Amino acid sequence: MSRGRSEGERTAAAAAGSPYPLAARAARAGRTVVDVGEGPGAVRFGEVPVPIIAGPCAVESWEQLAAAASAARTAGARLLRGGAFKPRTSPYAFQGLGEEGLRLLARARAATGLPVVTEVMTAGAVAMVAEYADALQIGARNMQNTDLLRACGRAGRPVLLKRGPAATVEELLLAAEYVLEAGNPRVILCERGIRTFEPATRNTLDLSAVALLRELTHLPVIADPSHGTGRRDLVVPMALAAIAAGADGLLVEVHPDPDQALSDGPQSLTPAQLQDLVTRARAVAGAVGRTV
Amino acid sequence: MSRGRSEGERTAAAAAGSPYPLAARAARAGRTVVDVGEGPGAVRFGEVPVPIIAGPCAVESWEQLAAAASAARTAGARLLRGGAFKPRTSPYAFQGLGEEGLRLLARARAATGLPVVTEVMTAGAVAMVAEYADALQIGARNMQNTDLLRACGRAGRPVLLKRGPAATVEELLLAAEYVLEAGNPRVILCERGIRTFEPATRNTLDLSAVALLRELTHLPVIADPSHGTGRRDLVVPMALAAIAAGADGLLVEVHPDPDQALSDGPQSLTPAQLQDLVTRARAVAGAVGRTV
Amino acid sequence: MSRGRSEGERTAAAAAGSPYPLAARAARAGRTVVDVGEGPGAVRFGEVPVPIIAGPCAVESWEQLAAAASAARTAGARLLRGGAFKPRTSPYAFQGLGEEGLRLLARARAATGLPVVTEVMTAGAVAMVAEYADALQIGARNMQNTDLLRACGRAGRPVLLKRGPAATVEELLLAAEYVLEAGNPRVILCERGIRTFEPATRNTLDLSAVALLRELTHLPVIADPSHGTGRRDLVVPMALAAIAAGADGLLVEVHPDPDQALSDGPQSLTPAQLQDLVTRARAVAGAVGRTV
Amino acid sequence: MSRGRSEGERTAAAAAGSPYPLAARAARAGRTVVDVGEGPGAVRFGEVPVPIIAGPCAVESWEQLAAAASAARTAGARLLRGGAFKPRTSPYAFQGLGEEGLRLLARARAATGLPVVTEVMTAGAVAMVAEYADALQIGARNMQNTDLLRACGRAGRPVLLKRGPAATVEELLLAAEYVLEAGNPRVILCERGIRTFEPATRNTLDLSAVALLRELTHLPVIADPSHGTGRRDLVVPMALAAIAAGADGLLVEVHPDPDQALSDGPQSLTPAQLQDLVTRARAVAGAVGRTV
Repeated sequence: MSRGRSEGERTAAAAAGSPYPLAARAARAGRTVVDVGEGPGAVRFGEVPVPIIAGPCAVESWEQLAAAASAARTAGARLLRGGAFKPRTSPYAFQGLGEEGLRLLARARAATGLPVVTEVMTAGAVAMVAEYADALQIGARNMQNTDLLRACGRAGRPVLLKRGPAATVEELLLAAEYVLEAGNPRVILCERGIRTFEPATRNTLDLSAVALLRELTHLPVIADPSHGTGRRDLVVPMALAAIAAGADGLLVEVHPDPDQALSDGPQSLTPAQLQDLVTRARAVAGAVGRTV
Repeated sequence: MSRGRSEGERTAAAAAGSPYPLAARAARAGRTVVDVGEGPGAVRFGEVPVPIIAGPCAVESWEQLAAAASAARTAGARLLRGGAFKPRTSPYAFQGLGEEGLRLLARARAATGLPVVTEVMTAGAVAMVAEYADALQIGARNMQNTDLLRACGRAGRPVLLKRGPAATVEELLLAAEYVLEAGNPRVILCERGIRTFEPATRNTLDLSAVALLRELTHLPVIADPSHGTGRRDLVVPMALAAIAAGADGLLVEVHPDPDQALSDGPQSLTPAQLQDLVTRARAVAGAVGRTV
Repeated sequence: MSRGRSEGERTAAAAAGSPYPLAARAARAGRTVVDVGEGPGAVRFGEVPVPIIAGPCAVESWEQLAAAASAARTAGARLLRGGAFKPRTSPYAFQGLGEEGLRLLARARAATGLPVVTEVMTAGAVAMVAEYADALQIGARNMQNTDLLRACGRAGRPVLLKRGPAATVEELLLAAEYVLEAGNPRVILCERGIRTFEPATRNTLDLSAVALLRELTHLPVIADPSHGTGRRDLVVPMALAAIAAGADGLLVEVHPDPDQALSDGPQSLTPAQLQDLVTRARAVAGAVGRTV
Repeated sequence: MSRGRSEGERTAAAAAGSPYPLAARAARAGRTVVDVGEGPGAVRFGEVPVPIIAGPCAVESWEQLAAAASAARTAGARLLRGGAFKPRTSPYAFQGLGEEGLRLLARARAATGLPVVTEVMTAGAVAMVAEYADALQIGARNMQNTDLLRACGRAGRPVLLKRGPAATVEELLLAAEYVLEAGNPRVILCERGIRTFEPATRNTLDLSAVALLRELTHLPVIADPSHGTGRRDLVVPMALAAIAAGADGLLVEVHPDPDQALSDGPQSLTPAQLQDLVTRARAVAGAVGRTV
């Protein structure tokens, strides 16, 4: 049963035979605008501006996070990202600072005024993460973790849902439908690259999915060129391309010293590169009737 | 910290520089044999026999399960599968009977003597599922759900770990490493098809992964030709091919009336087809020095 | 033996150990500029302007081609495309008008002043196609047809080389190396979508390949959002994204009446949509320091 | 216009609406049997026996070819393979001995009695290759080279058509349709691995395609586990699996000294390994009602 939308809205789309009646474009007259954060720093996704979310892959220490957050704010990013709980392929890789990482993120928000987005990996941790964060990220590996999707659907926080590396666009919308159906209408979709045969990039950023999602759903759609390419040198051009393709926001990794990063160093921008990205993103956004 | 293997064994492999020191072939002198079930019906994976696990995709009712379990036993399958908790792409699809499904599985075990394998979808449900089931299945969508992997690593039940549809062989081994590292040495790997461009089959069953895993790890490796193909007409040839490629077991779906199945009907065998599969599997197994 | 570059240039790159010493970025001080056409209508690829090549998938008749060519010129496209020889998956599909199609293309060039790009499918046809066309297109299916690559390398016409649907970026560069090595330095690379698991689009347009190729080679790189998406509604956003990612040109399909097209109707723009594309492309190009 | 089949046969299948009316299973009452070679050494594909084609990737010298051919015959292979014209990704790689290689192949046939299969890369070379070889191989890169397909359709020699690395099963059948439609009914299809995200193997051998093709077409279907895996250690298990899946033949690479091979050394068997393969293939073939 849907709590986030009126029965009439739901029926309308369902009547159209959509497999995702709540997420379907036809379910609403206009686009959903998702607010993240409160007070003067609150950021809206789904309107003319294209907010940039920046920060380190993982929260490593207060010094690292503070430097990254300061770089993000200086460059013009509007939200801070950073992982406290890290889903890693290997059990021996750095798994994040856990709740201590969340505390550091909250401290960085207080210092910079930037709302915080961070990943939650389990249904059991949703309440704790929601206490510290302004938005809950569901990672690519968890896109079809239905228990987590439902828990985030009851969390009272906006959800940033990343596309799985082998998920079709339809499967992403059905994952979003789990969150919507559980009662949370504040979902932001994120294209972050799919797995293909090409070895030169970590993933293949599928920007046609961004353009297509803008047609298929009323939910905002952002792009992550950092994971989407895995290469620092490709982040800026693909960030610009994402905006041109219609993205409602960007998610990029920045690190004060990428070569020393505990994870994802090769795809993290330096603060100077982030500044350059924002400047150039502003120009492209203007060319397509948006702002940064 | 590893509890499942001696420090010496672990060190040996780690010294060899493997990214998965516990799962690596070099971590043990011989192959791991995983027991499933207790008493006279107990089944061993990793020795000469190639056990067949059969049953419906989802437990739908006692009548359906009893018929499928009886068909499995009659045909010569050694274990019963059946989903009580179903990970579904759509929130509106049948999600399984939950704990009632587990009770039916336990009843079917009592009726047939076949040990039971069933999927567990969340860390929180591991204890409950372990109470009813002889082995815990971690589904393809959850292969990198590290919380679940660790919980199964502490469960005291063997784990059947399915390869994710976009996971590399190395990532599957690293997922197994999470379970091993948490203290559970009883892991069975399962190839169930990867996602490719080919639309004629639901997935592409990667039997070279079976042959390769037999070299890379000491853990038993089985194949699931039902999900691997998504087509009933291809299940038997691919089951035979899997045995020829070196599989230590098979996982196949059978339903008393596939056309009426609530899920995966097109890939479910009829009881007669299962009987045919076992007969032919026996011949191929004999040709490669195995038995069924 | 290379005839297109000085021995010194070649040696320099070879010394750097590149697998494609002639195509490698290091083989030249600057970027290669490829001229297509002669006289006042000549077009240059690889400088600040981003030329748009437009026209029908296949030349069907004089009326159809004249209407498409006129639409292309009116919209601001700089070159005319159109297939006279069509590589088709089925032997029963329309295979093109052959040499008659080439004559119509030449007539359309005379009428509009737009240089003509058309596909050549066999080494034996290179001389004939080169007599009519200003640039020779090597299609995606033929990217590794080494006989054709070498023949185009001796043709005295610029070559538009499309990436194969399953070719890596490195393989595309090695295919270009065949043309360069045979003596023709005028090669334009074209990203046109790769084959992935996603069924919602015909191919997945890999714009990161455009950005990456701009780093790896001195050759100009263009994008084909028509084949890259297979959907008319996605052509404009992906065309804009391609320019933002750094493309040196665009290749798009336009048809006076797409619903009646003999091939590729669903991905062909109407003349009005092409006009809209060019207008918007001009804005995005301006934002990244280019022009259209 | 079809010359290879009666109008009645063609009409029957076409009436069924198949996109490949000549290749479709319904086009004939039984299976097509393709003869390769003449006299006592002639080999038939599509009946109970499963012939093995073995030989080096490339013909390098008489000594190498003679040793490989002798190993093939001794092991029990029924045909000799060997490339005289090699399609290579790089223009700087060894491209084969050309016509001299064909002469050596004919000499090896005379010495061993094994019919010869070799690749033809261009329509223009079909007549020359057909003069020396018993069967013409169309390589994976050329599967959609329609000019070559048609030329082989008029060649009077059986054709071994390899599936492209990104071709669907339907596209393979449509490629075969080009050959059949041009008048040559003697086509053998070959699965040789598709391109996927998995880096551990050179390609992913899609044995479900073998099983599926046995349903969709009356043409014989063989498998190439050498290219399909790219790893010597996986060739034997995948060869056995292919037979179990229903393959009508095998194509395997053998080299007297794989470490010194000019191409494909890592996937070439030693003579002793080929002997082992044949012995084990015989056992599996027997288990599925075939012989080797």
